[in-house]
Amino acid sequence: MIRMRIRNKSIIKIAAVIATMFFAHALLGSDGDEDLLKQAKQLFGQLPEEMVSHENPITPEKVELGKMLFYDTRISIDGTVSCARCHPFSLYAADGLRKSIGNQCKTNPRNAPSILNSAGQISAHWIGKRTGVEDQAKKSVIGAGSFGMPSYMEVEKKLKENGYESFFKEAFPEDNDPVTMDNFAKAVGAFERILVTPSPFDEFLAGNSKALDKQEKKGLMAFMGIGCTTCHSGVYIGGQMYQKFGLFEPYEKYTKSEVIDEGRFAATKNESDKYVFKVPVLRNVARTPPYFHDGSVDDLMQAEWIMGKVQLGKDIPKEELEDIEVFLKSLTGKIPEDALKIPILPSSE
Amino acid sequence: MIRMRIRNKSIIKIAAVIATMFFAHALLGSDGDEDLLKQAKQLFGQLPEEMVSHENPITPEKVELGKMLFYDTRISIDGTVSCARCHPFSLYAADGLRKSIGNQCKTNPRNAPSILNSAGQISAHWIGKRTGVEDQAKKSVIGAGSFGMPSYMEVEKKLKENGYESFFKEAFPEDNDPVTMDNFAKAVGAFERILVTPSPFDEFLAGNSKALDKQEKKGLMAFMGIGCTTCHSGVYIGGQMYQKFGLFEPYEKYTKSEVIDEGRFAATKNESDKYVFKVPVLRNVARTPPYFHDGSVDDLMQAEWIMGKVQLGKDIPKEELEDIEVFLKSLTGKIPEDALKIPILPSSE
Repeated sequence: MIRMRIRNKSIIKIAAVIATMFFAHALLGSDGDEDLLKQAKQLFGQLPEEMVSHENPITPEKVELGKMLFYDTRISIDGTVSCARCHPFSLYAADGLRKSIGNQCKTNPRNAPSILNSAGQISAHWIGKRTGVEDQAKKSVIGAGSFGMPSYMEVEKKLKENGYESFFKEAFPEDNDPVTMDNFAKAVGAFERILVTPSPFDEFLAGNSKALDKQEKKGLMAFMGIGCTTCHSGVYIGGQMYQKFGLFEPYEKYTKSEVIDEGRFAATKNESDKYVFKVPVLRNVARTPPYFHDGSVDDLMQAEWIMGKVQLGKDIPKEELEDIEVFLKSLTGKIPEDALKIPILPSSE
Repeated sequence: MIRMRIRNKSIIKIAAVIATMFFAHALLGSDGDEDLLKQAKQLFGQLPEEMVSHENPITPEKVELGKMLFYDTRISIDGTVSCARCHPFSLYAADGLRKSIGNQCKTNPRNAPSILNSAGQISAHWIGKRTGVEDQAKKSVIGAGSFGMPSYMEVEKKLKENGYESFFKEAFPEDNDPVTMDNFAKAVGAFERILVTPSPFDEFLAGNSKALDKQEKKGLMAFMGIGCTTCHSGVYIGGQMYQKFGLFEPYEKYTKSEVIDEGRFAATKNESDKYVFKVPVLRNVARTPPYFHDGSVDDLMQAEWIMGKVQLGKDIPKEELEDIEVFLKSLTGKIPEDALKIPILPSSE
């Protein structure tokens, strides 16, 4: 896993130049497809079936419980918020809003990222304020702008009142008093760890060169060639590093952003983290507008163009933007059938 | 379909006395189960597989489209409301709130009834303000407290923007311009018309006397005997008539209700409709607290006791309340598999 931070414009520029040369060569080669595949494999790798964790092994019982908890609005302060509210699978587990709206209509500081493929990232939240999906799930419940519960104890009480005890016992058979927020986090985390969405691009990576058409391949080549993969690489096409947003120009110059977000600085208070964000996962990106941490851009091609301007110092031409968009659409994947089946929630009945 | 209104206390009392004598006889008979079944069949009848409508025939294409529309928050004014928000299947298609909360945190005037089995009713809404599920679906979208859209035209625009055109074309192949709110209503209505939930009680009605245990049968007998079936009859165990709420005593005397709801009077302005409500469907009642039009009662047995006091002039003893509760739990049914599968929504992609 790549955990380095790249902040220096020159490195980005050099990387982009090398990449361009490299992929131009691949394109010109007699065996273009094979070279393209080889390079893509090195940059992205094979999508796992599940996003495993040694600290939180996935079991069917945890996944079943986690899925129920994912849908339960009864554990929020006003009875309107569940994980599924901001991460509905019908919209690829993002909510389509610029900024998420939580309990009592509170607007959250940033756009809700999809939770599909998100357990494989270095951290959770745009600014990495949560260590992972388990930490994110747990803290959301007492988040003022999300579930808004006053304490973990109150959540545990609600879980017991709503008939969850036997499900926690099954998922955590060795615990004497299993209805705890740590187990809540593990259960929801285990469910999120199965949310992997294989796409046509993965078929291509697996060796089927027909899984992408000509324009998709052209887009992939451009994506690698102009430097996007400096940050958006690995099996999730992002999610593996932090990066300053606005390396060449301020992001806000090109958007309707109302405020300037200082990013990871809010979490670490390190001056060097100003305007730094976690590089987002690009899987299913075509299906999860609006874009960026503030959700201020609706159109994918517009988002690509802005990325070129502010991160690569490039004015990407329209044709290339179109090719890249077509490639990005090949990252739209299949949500696991099991995740698409709504669980019936327990009751005190 | 029974459409009469029963408002006179004496009729209710006489009916209750006759019913009690009748079912006491049935219990004492050597062939108690058979008599009980015979009477129950006459009062309730056989649950259909779908709730058909001549005006809106159910087709797979309409159901598929209707299900997508049911989940789409993008057609609400603030992007947070879909049909599924107040009618989540994970909670038997009710939201568990005292009163539903719609766009921009607006509190609705009444508790959200489950939409399971609801298409078989004489009308929609607690006070019958909507003619049926189609009318309800359509008007919700411009309801100030629900989706909050300014006009049907704006909704049609959003539907087109979000990639629905081809789905409307498939569902309404004979229409030149199929993306209309009338077709929206038909599609959502067709989806709701498949939401029938067969329960153990239906197995009993079909002739399997073992589908209910001894206490459930005792509860059924009490339910019929004390007069509940005067209103809660038919295949949906309610939903077939209007009734004054508070025949013997005011409902508000026994609850935490903050305001006195004048009921159907608000819809018709007829003095005789004051405190009149549609008799609710009792299928899945054990899984859809809180109870009554204002959702002010959390406990099912408490709700039964209040019904006895205000509608039957009776202080139902604890043992009988328990039996009835056990019977009502046998009305918890199976939600169609197809309804439990979340659809992926279209996009402009």
